[in-house]
Amino acid sequence: MDPKKPNRRGFLKGGAAAAGLAAGAVQTAKGQAPAIAAYSKKELISYGERSHFVTSVRAPAPGRTSPDAFGLVFHVATPLQDQIGNITPSALHYVATHRGAFVPDIDPKEHRLMIHGMVDRPLTFTMDELKRFPAVTRQHFIECAGNRARATDKTVQESHGLTSNTEWTGVLLSTLLKECGVQSGAPWVVAEGAEEVKGASSIPLAKAMDDCLVAYGQVGEPIRPQQGFPLRLLVPGYEGIFQVKYLRRIKVVDRYYWTYNDYGHRRSEPREAAMATIWGPKSVITFPSGGQKMSGPGSYEIRGLAWSGQGAVKGVEISTDGGKSWKAAALKGTAHRMAHVAFGMQWNWDGKECELMSRCTDEQGSIQPTMAQVAKYWNEPLTKETRVKGLDNSIQPWKIASDGSVTNGKV
Amino acid sequence: MDPKKPNRRGFLKGGAAAAGLAAGAVQTAKGQAPAIAAYSKKELISYGERSHFVTSVRAPAPGRTSPDAFGLVFHVATPLQDQIGNITPSALHYVATHRGAFVPDIDPKEHRLMIHGMVDRPLTFTMDELKRFPAVTRQHFIECAGNRARATDKTVQESHGLTSNTEWTGVLLSTLLKECGVQSGAPWVVAEGAEEVKGASSIPLAKAMDDCLVAYGQVGEPIRPQQGFPLRLLVPGYEGIFQVKYLRRIKVVDRYYWTYNDYGHRRSEPREAAMATIWGPKSVITFPSGGQKMSGPGSYEIRGLAWSGQGAVKGVEISTDGGKSWKAAALKGTAHRMAHVAFGMQWNWDGKECELMSRCTDEQGSIQPTMAQVAKYWNEPLTKETRVKGLDNSIQPWKIASDGSVTNGKV
Repeated sequence: MDPKKPNRRGFLKGGAAAAGLAAGAVQTAKGQAPAIAAYSKKELISYGERSHFVTSVRAPAPGRTSPDAFGLVFHVATPLQDQIGNITPSALHYVATHRGAFVPDIDPKEHRLMIHGMVDRPLTFTMDELKRFPAVTRQHFIECAGNRARATDKTVQESHGLTSNTEWTGVLLSTLLKECGVQSGAPWVVAEGAEEVKGASSIPLAKAMDDCLVAYGQVGEPIRPQQGFPLRLLVPGYEGIFQVKYLRRIKVVDRYYWTYNDYGHRRSEPREAAMATIWGPKSVITFPSGGQKMSGPGSYEIRGLAWSGQGAVKGVEISTDGGKSWKAAALKGTAHRMAHVAFGMQWNWDGKECELMSRCTDEQGSIQPTMAQVAKYWNEPLTKETRVKGLDNSIQPWKIASDGSVTNGKV
Repeated sequence: MDPKKPNRRGFLKGGAAAAGLAAGAVQTAKGQAPAIAAYSKKELISYGERSHFVTSVRAPAPGRTSPDAFGLVFHVATPLQDQIGNITPSALHYVATHRGAFVPDIDPKEHRLMIHGMVDRPLTFTMDELKRFPAVTRQHFIECAGNRARATDKTVQESHGLTSNTEWTGVLLSTLLKECGVQSGAPWVVAEGAEEVKGASSIPLAKAMDDCLVAYGQVGEPIRPQQGFPLRLLVPGYEGIFQVKYLRRIKVVDRYYWTYNDYGHRRSEPREAAMATIWGPKSVITFPSGGQKMSGPGSYEIRGLAWSGQGAVKGVEISTDGGKSWKAAALKGTAHRMAHVAFGMQWNWDGKECELMSRCTDEQGSIQPTMAQVAKYWNEPLTKETRVKGLDNSIQPWKIASDGSVTNGKV
């Protein structure tokens, strides 16, 4: 940005000389038949694709098996280091399943949602019928309970990539439950999808009647197959297993049902159990983050994402001195309830070693903790073995070396 | 939704009998090796695609040539009839260019943006340098001046498909202009892209310093090639030609520059000229819309999109009796400034012929006009030849026949 830098002078001089005309230093079309061949007719007309220069991809989460090993847990993580803005590109939304890469291939014309159990009128709905009810459009994040940063993680994709954020559209579950007429004395709801492991977990009726969404849209189009096409239950703020994909059945019940997928919620320690369902305030710096390299001292925007399962993000602070001091970051765009919001803070790097952290506060006033605070809460020493016992929303430190390289700062 | 309908009874009975287990009436995985072959390993891991049951595509706008006829105007329209929620899927964003389907194939590492003219410090920026400035993330629509509904249009894709809405991320043009130091007596800015027809049009400096965005991100990832990869100028609310793709140069100038693309802005009638740059309040019903068919009398949500180039949408009203009476629709999600927002209104169709319309009011208090009001304003009779003289934001009527079929109601 310094006009006196030699490698820019030529271009600027040319630009100044060319006055009203194109400088020519940037690649130009020059009038001849341009690079139309780089794009197929399908891309040009019916359905555009991203540039071949853009190569960001999902990757299996550390320690998770590839879909070749069918029958095992399958997790692929979003490349958060490449994230621009608040919404995850649908093609890069994280995926977590419990039966390998199995994706039910559902014809939406044949799909049905049944609501039954303790209701006055058990009903089934076709997709077309669901779309006749009032639709709502909301941004919400989803995050896998296994999104747990380790000291061995090299990148933010490895440490935090099992969360994504989307514009969902669908009908409120409360609208459908009112249509069915919930009977008194029915405090729980169980949901089931068309996967082999059906992803059910018991949901309080109060939550079901509040903001749960029976979603069929994802960023302007039908939900993608790996996100639950054609129908997904959203339980905003709850950990991933509640967000039942390929939703086909909801049952209103009189007790908490124990299911395959509840292994994470039933814990003997009551505080652990309480912290294993709803995400607390969380944030992570995506630039600079592990594996990236600063191009030298100077001005940068430190950037990241923040979210909370308890409501909207109220603020994010950033520390550039390993947590000794904190400054407010700016939130980008609207901070929706239970949704990612991007944040940023301008920062002048002096070229010295340092440690960056971000800290989220949500609308309930809850503050994202350091691992030291987590250890103290559990009255344990902070060691390499310290692990967040509920859902992991601990602060992620990134270390910057004097050569600009960035590494994981977790102990 | 009636549980007594014969075709649902079997399913419901099975469901009730199966109690805690899957009813089986919906397609199930049944434990055997599932349809993993329907998806490639690339889709399953690195980059997910939409379902093969989803076939919505863009299409050439009526009267526009295909890219085979290279050298001519090329417009492909978004399938608004399939739009779910507020954000257009990036692959379906409308495209309008003035040199066939030409898409510059730009290596972002080589791309530069030069800002020069009446500035203290002419500067060029690499993409990496642009990303070091504070980023903003905002939803904005873009709409082609040629988005003009005709009585011959069969679908909403044909009549209104040259507008789309995206989450853009980039740096405010004002941030860059401040870096360069704008000199006094410089009331205009001209922008240039790397297309053959460079898309420039003169922009008031006041607008440039207000909310113009030098954007590199589109819904979480780099801008798509047909939307201007790697860099696009956003001039929120202004007609499409201002939104310069493949942005490589901005010049601060002392006068209005007349360019190739200004044919739409210079008009001898001063009121026409005034109405040819910024979009007024506009809306269109996307369901039910031309070519669709209601499946019979009953309850539906009438849905559509509303926007304005003058700020945020304040409200949308819907008429189901050809404009005699109007009722307020609900807006879906946040109504951002110069952005599409979905709307809806629950409606019980009695199975009789009727005419639907939507009417947008924006935060300035401007109201979308009927064609009759347009004709009256220009003191002309309303005929088949009546045409909005500036940008067309007239009300779109859809007629519903007693058999449920929907046709264009424009005279």
